[in-house]
Amino acid sequence: MSDQQLPSIERVLLGPGPSLIAPRVMRAMTAPVLSHLDPDLVTLLDDVRARLTRVFKAPEGTLTIAMSGTGTSGMEAMVANLVGDGTRVLVVVGGYFGERLAEMCRRYGATVSRLDVEWGRAVDPAAVQAALRDGGQVDIVACVHAETSTGVLNPVKEIAALAHEHGALVIVDTVTSLGGHPVDVAGWGLDAVYSCTQKCVGAPSGMAPVAFTPAAQKRRVACRSFYLDLALLEDFWVRRKYHHTLSSTMIYALREALMAVEEEGLEERWARHERNHLALARGLAAIGLDLLPPPADRLWTLNAVRVPAGIDEAAARQRLLREFNIEVGAGLGPLAGKIWRVGLMGASSTPAMVVLFLGALEHVLRTMGHKGGSGAAAAALEALN
Amino acid sequence: MSDQQLPSIERVLLGPGPSLIAPRVMRAMTAPVLSHLDPDLVTLLDDVRARLTRVFKAPEGTLTIAMSGTGTSGMEAMVANLVGDGTRVLVVVGGYFGERLAEMCRRYGATVSRLDVEWGRAVDPAAVQAALRDGGQVDIVACVHAETSTGVLNPVKEIAALAHEHGALVIVDTVTSLGGHPVDVAGWGLDAVYSCTQKCVGAPSGMAPVAFTPAAQKRRVACRSFYLDLALLEDFWVRRKYHHTLSSTMIYALREALMAVEEEGLEERWARHERNHLALARGLAAIGLDLLPPPADRLWTLNAVRVPAGIDEAAARQRLLREFNIEVGAGLGPLAGKIWRVGLMGASSTPAMVVLFLGALEHVLRTMGHKGGSGAAAAALEALN
Repeated sequence: MSDQQLPSIERVLLGPGPSLIAPRVMRAMTAPVLSHLDPDLVTLLDDVRARLTRVFKAPEGTLTIAMSGTGTSGMEAMVANLVGDGTRVLVVVGGYFGERLAEMCRRYGATVSRLDVEWGRAVDPAAVQAALRDGGQVDIVACVHAETSTGVLNPVKEIAALAHEHGALVIVDTVTSLGGHPVDVAGWGLDAVYSCTQKCVGAPSGMAPVAFTPAAQKRRVACRSFYLDLALLEDFWVRRKYHHTLSSTMIYALREALMAVEEEGLEERWARHERNHLALARGLAAIGLDLLPPPADRLWTLNAVRVPAGIDEAAARQRLLREFNIEVGAGLGPLAGKIWRVGLMGASSTPAMVVLFLGALEHVLRTMGHKGGSGAAAAALEALN
Repeated sequence: MSDQQLPSIERVLLGPGPSLIAPRVMRAMTAPVLSHLDPDLVTLLDDVRARLTRVFKAPEGTLTIAMSGTGTSGMEAMVANLVGDGTRVLVVVGGYFGERLAEMCRRYGATVSRLDVEWGRAVDPAAVQAALRDGGQVDIVACVHAETSTGVLNPVKEIAALAHEHGALVIVDTVTSLGGHPVDVAGWGLDAVYSCTQKCVGAPSGMAPVAFTPAAQKRRVACRSFYLDLALLEDFWVRRKYHHTLSSTMIYALREALMAVEEEGLEERWARHERNHLALARGLAAIGLDLLPPPADRLWTLNAVRVPAGIDEAAARQRLLREFNIEVGAGLGPLAGKIWRVGLMGASSTPAMVVLFLGALEHVLRTMGHKGGSGAAAAALEALN
């Protein structure tokens, strides 16, 4: 067996992540390996910390590092360092990743109360306020900013303000927003925030940026995990004390991706994600397709497209993959079979990708018997001009 | 800021890991990204599982996968899935990584008993037998096969047999042995084994191969960690159920490295590591240097070289780095300042690396006033012929 089993052409990555990687990021990964304690790597780690602080807009004193694991390790790191036996956590659950947050808090010993929200709708801050007022004191409110399973953006700024009024910290999941939607840890008063590298940031998966603010640091618990213990990780990232063999390869990729983010500019990058999302929505409407969330609740980064009546979700998805080399995601949990998840994130958020996807989808649906109109790509391009 | 801060020449990696990476592995990493659920990636995951099973020599029914994290995540995965509140664990502690095993077991709620061994000596199986006989029943014996902090190889086959006589499982750390020393999970009856990718296996760091045998599976506990829960990871690797966004990039590298291991052949690869280690030891002796462990206890992969009297350990190490671009490791804990840790692992285990290192070291020591003889490289080459 040999190289021939590696992919020979670039998959068009329009699922819930990973997204397409810019060539400069791929090239950076092939730089010679440095050890985790090499003085030249330490310089790069300092640079990555500074860049993450700016991209998160984190306040002074925040520990901004990247966990050596995927976004899920970032989620678990926040929970493991803030949740112990008996910690009271209110979790906003409006999708698969809200469920995951609740499950992780439970595993770490929390008393979990849930605020369940209909999948596909943003949480109403008034509901959070009611839960905080009527549900008894909690120590932490945990919430997903950009719910990858439903395509919904939650009002985490408002939630953070309510949590603080009640003396609680907020843990916020920005896996599908950082680099694609405004995230402002300092301005919004978020306390413990995690993300991933492979969506809007633009690197391969394998690291999880986190921002652990001074407010969170003051309320840390004895961390049961050794691998995810932020005190030990701070000893490594800041004070160069060995903890684990961090991968220089992944650091090169993450740093190059963060450089590209800052060169583009955060505001322009957010605007690009918004433009391409709106164009996609317009194109979908032209062929009679709708998104799951109402317009005000929609992510720009991940589009939950309702599967039209009479169309076999999995069959259409397979055809996109086999005929057009396009990957989109399936629905999770109660949304299985009901939506496609179309990501326009990082290097995948371009007019070209919108046109390619809409052209392919229109063809596939028409040949499967869907009668919803035509001209999706043209409608999208019109929206872009 | 730009590319210029990435290393422009290959660091000569002769520390405790990472080791040098073969060009074919670097190339594999740059193949187009596939998502964690892409059917083409799934084929590669099956291939990686089969290769890991052969390299570990794992028995049928073993879960052989790679954690999405470094070797330390592999250690924690074994502990998190086998150790809960009150689990009784006997930990053999003869170095830094034995200490880490004990610490992790403690964090996961174990009642830990320690069998302390002098740093730099292998554990005597008779001492394990005595501890098992006199120390009360234990559920697990945890031991490091190749102790990276001291350069010592422990008799894990004998320890596993003793543990099983007493009804205990064994957790074994093969971070610095897998691919460089014989490891035989089935033949030796090891139960839960973890390793890393960046030492003798030959890939960048970032994944942790593990072998979780049927015997271990029967005694798993409710895993507190979500990220490291082997039941969920088996659902992903075997049954394709989403758990985390595994990095295809890291899988390409690991698979290519495992292909190279199998093409060379395990027995020939072990013999290569032995030959180069013996040559290094001969060369060191020619200039009056000794290794910390006695000959029978020595690793082939990691050489703990005693710093001669009158030499400043850190200054010599800095000169190797600055004048020759060679990285070696410092001593950890009680061995700080007393040893250099010289790794000859994977692509770093070659006669050329032995000669380069010895020539550089001899020069550095002579110019620092060490009078211990000369001709280190020649002596090493003689040993190789």
